Amino acid sequence: MTPAFEKLQKYLKQLPGMGYRSAERIALHLLVERPERLPALVEALQSAAAAVHRCSRCGNLAEGEQCAICADDKRPSSVVCVVEHVPDLVAIERSGAFRGTYHVLHGKLSPIQGVGPEHLNLSSLVARIEAGEIQELILALSNDVEGEATCHYLVDRVPAGRVKVTRIGFGLPSGGGVLYADSVTLKSALDGRRSFS
Amino acid sequence: MTPAFEKLQKYLKQLPGMGYRSAERIALHLLVERPERLPALVEALQSAAAAVHRCSRCGNLAEGEQCAICADDKRPSSVVCVVEHVPDLVAIERSGAFRGTYHVLHGKLSPIQGVGPEHLNLSSLVARIEAGEIQELILALSNDVEGEATCHYLVDRVPAGRVKVTRIGFGLPSGGGVLYADSVTLKSALDGRRSFS
Repeated sequence: MTPAFEKLQKYLKQLPGMGYRSAERIALHLLVERPERLPALVEALQSAAAAVHRCSRCGNLAEGEQCAICADDKRPSSVVCVVEHVPDLVAIERSGAFRGTYHVLHGKLSPIQGVGPEHLNLSSLVARIEAGEIQELILALSNDVEGEATCHYLVDRVPAGRVKVTRIGFGLPSGGGVLYADSVTLKSALDGRRSFS
Repeated sequence: MTPAFEKLQKYLKQLPGMGYRSAERIALHLLVERPERLPALVEALQSAAAAVHRCSRCGNLAEGEQCAICADDKRPSSVVCVVEHVPDLVAIERSGAFRGTYHVLHGKLSPIQGVGPEHLNLSSLVARIEAGEIQELILALSNDVEGEATCHYLVDRVPAGRVKVTRIGFGLPSGGGVLYADSVTLKSALDGRRSFS
């Protein structure tokens, strides 16, 4: 193919979930089959990049000063679910299981990869805790060493007794059988067992 | 999410092989995780759209007047493989099974969908045939009613005796068992049987 085509394919291939063939298919689609779609896509990319930034309060995607969730009066800012990344927030929103507000850290502590507290969106969370607006902090961080370390870091920064801190449950996913669960999941599931009533 | 995010997701979802979730994942990737990749992708899209057009001779993607295949002296212009779309050409090139040149119709005849000869890249092929440069025309069109009709249309336009016209073989794909083949494929395979020697 042509150099400009191959360059486009290269950049498309860097996107998540995109392989060599799917990048080729999309490049051909935009250049040959439906070239009228290309300017609209470029415009959408450019206007999203210009309009979307981090919510000053929670770190979620926002177009105004605050994101749609922080700006919603019906969602109590006293219950805050802490997540690592925006897609985690999106997944929880999609489940419909939570109606409070969020705080997006944009990462987790990882001394091995050189990620310290200064690299995370932590200062505004500490400010929210110190302002006394938070009553419950739900830690929805991943079930691994870095997630664990980040939870401990946050717990240490919360004034004892003033804020209730919980961590989401770990165990067997819905529809998953014991047979197919890995050892770490099974350990979490056994540790997190509840009385059957 | 925000309006600009949702607009971007909508345009991404229109791309082939892209679902709601993969469009969301890519939009989040480009806006939150790796925003530095977005300008490079936009630039690649714009420069490809500006640079790439149809080869004046065969209809393939080209950046100059002719595509890389037509411009290659080692590829005989006397053997021409006729395909419906550029991805078909790409698939044949990838197989390494053909070293002649191509002609891309950008579609196939379909009276039901209102696609007539005037909608296809046919005039330059007829000009190539009339100029006497083509010795063999290999029809690599799909194995359906429209592909069949397009083949007959082309055969009628070829001066009898001057140009050899062939059609690619149809039958069982490599690695495919008789058990899993559909009826049309099995009929093609039986019709196209060869003596075992």
